[in-house]
Amino acid sequence: MGLIVVGSIGLDDIETPFDKVENALGGSTTYIALAASYFTGPISVVGVVGDDFDNKHIKMLEEHNIDLEGLKIVESAKTFRYGCRYHYDLNARESLYTHLNVFEKFDPVIPQKSKKNSFVILGNIAPALQMNVLDQLDNAKFTVCDTMNFWINGAFDELMKVLKRVNVLVINDSEARLLSKEPNLIKAAKIISDMGPQYLIIKKGEHGALLFGDNTIFSAPAYPMENIFDPTGAGDAFAGGFTGYLHKNRDFSFDNLKRAVIYGSVMASFCVEKFSTKGLENLSFLEIHNRFIEFRNLSSFS
Amino acid sequence: MGLIVVGSIGLDDIETPFDKVENALGGSTTYIALAASYFTGPISVVGVVGDDFDNKHIKMLEEHNIDLEGLKIVESAKTFRYGCRYHYDLNARESLYTHLNVFEKFDPVIPQKSKKNSFVILGNIAPALQMNVLDQLDNAKFTVCDTMNFWINGAFDELMKVLKRVNVLVINDSEARLLSKEPNLIKAAKIISDMGPQYLIIKKGEHGALLFGDNTIFSAPAYPMENIFDPTGAGDAFAGGFTGYLHKNRDFSFDNLKRAVIYGSVMASFCVEKFSTKGLENLSFLEIHNRFIEFRNLSSFS
Repeated sequence: MGLIVVGSIGLDDIETPFDKVENALGGSTTYIALAASYFTGPISVVGVVGDDFDNKHIKMLEEHNIDLEGLKIVESAKTFRYGCRYHYDLNARESLYTHLNVFEKFDPVIPQKSKKNSFVILGNIAPALQMNVLDQLDNAKFTVCDTMNFWINGAFDELMKVLKRVNVLVINDSEARLLSKEPNLIKAAKIISDMGPQYLIIKKGEHGALLFGDNTIFSAPAYPMENIFDPTGAGDAFAGGFTGYLHKNRDFSFDNLKRAVIYGSVMASFCVEKFSTKGLENLSFLEIHNRFIEFRNLSSFS
Repeated sequence: MGLIVVGSIGLDDIETPFDKVENALGGSTTYIALAASYFTGPISVVGVVGDDFDNKHIKMLEEHNIDLEGLKIVESAKTFRYGCRYHYDLNARESLYTHLNVFEKFDPVIPQKSKKNSFVILGNIAPALQMNVLDQLDNAKFTVCDTMNFWINGAFDELMKVLKRVNVLVINDSEARLLSKEPNLIKAAKIISDMGPQYLIIKKGEHGALLFGDNTIFSAPAYPMENIFDPTGAGDAFAGGFTGYLHKNRDFSFDNLKRAVIYGSVMASFCVEKFSTKGLENLSFLEIHNRFIEFRNLSSFS
């Protein structure tokens, strides 16, 4: 009963007002798996890269006890590559290029040993592929799903089928408004919940996150950050921390889902403090715990 | 040791996607005083209206135990009038007209009986007038100040003088960014705190509010609202609830300031549920208390 992560693994060129990095480890799966690895195991990554994927990345992921049996390495082919630039306020991201490369024909194959009773995080990939993954699983215990504007606009019907089969949908506020065609987030959440997911998380960046479900709403604060060095992967780190925490204790009460949202927010806050995956590579459980306490102090009143 | 409220009193024409009202009671002082009236007294309003100001408004304010000795009624002159239109998402307000009328020569005079040991809320008026009010007071106990983009751009130096003399500045996020010339709100808060105010509250509309001070940050959630009928006065209702609560118990600990921020948020949430001041006219203490509890349930985790 492991935790399966399916999505992109890539190499990124990222430019922010503070600095830039080239050829840095990226991809939704990478961020999700790293964030989850601080809470639980085994974590199985299902993805594809080319033979230009540096062995040091493989090694780093393995050092986090991430199982790479589901990682396909295609000879004489290139890894998914993405370039983007963040502007001064770090809210707007400008995509510079997207080279799908091996990711264009990504055909996720879940390792036999992971198929039964697993948790699964469906990273931001085509809804048809997400469905393909769900179809391979035997008695999935808990399913968390991400998506984006591109799929909401371009693969709405397939996405609707996926949403009927997931426990949690994790999206940001603009995606929630697009998906529901409703500007008010509270109304939007009701519309999206009616599409199928048992729980909905709407991430609001510097304004925190909202968890909807069990006819209840939880409002999580954002960690106050003076310097966000690189917003890339924050949403994926959130999904990884959230699901990793739940996978560890398997308590699906709303109170525990609230804690999971905070642990997701904690991992997102660490993620954006450094470039690429660096903010998620060398954390201690004490640091994570202390930041959880900081979140509590930030929002508690009596 | 009363609570003095100084600012505009006006008549508004408001149009939202849901409905419209004409000639409705408005003005920052009106909203502030009504919101504060549920917590404490005596509340002294200092303002000016023309003889077109309907007696029913006077009566309604007096029924809330609001002292109008400081309200000047100018014969053969018109009350301040403001018209605006809110668009679909209710975040953007389009001003249709502003007729200052008697408000153009507003010269606030604090009644003799209220000058000593008072709390004061400086509504959104010219910083020079705010300073004039502060100069009339004898040993002000607690000063809360609002301002807006118009004064930040047009009366920066006078505003800086006022900020050195106030306990709390209450502004929204776009005003905070403009005042500090810094897009990051956490950095902005440090810059603004260095301008003088002991505490800073940044209101973020549908994203709640942040309280800064004592080297601590408190993040207050927003009340989840499906229908905001009229956003007019929400910020003033916040300031009134916040200061009214503090005036009642005179406890300036950070823990109590946090509660005051929530009571401010509670009053703002009631304000926007109805047009004009209607949402603040007929509340019970139980309704206010219950909504405070709802705010706690919304954001608490352990």
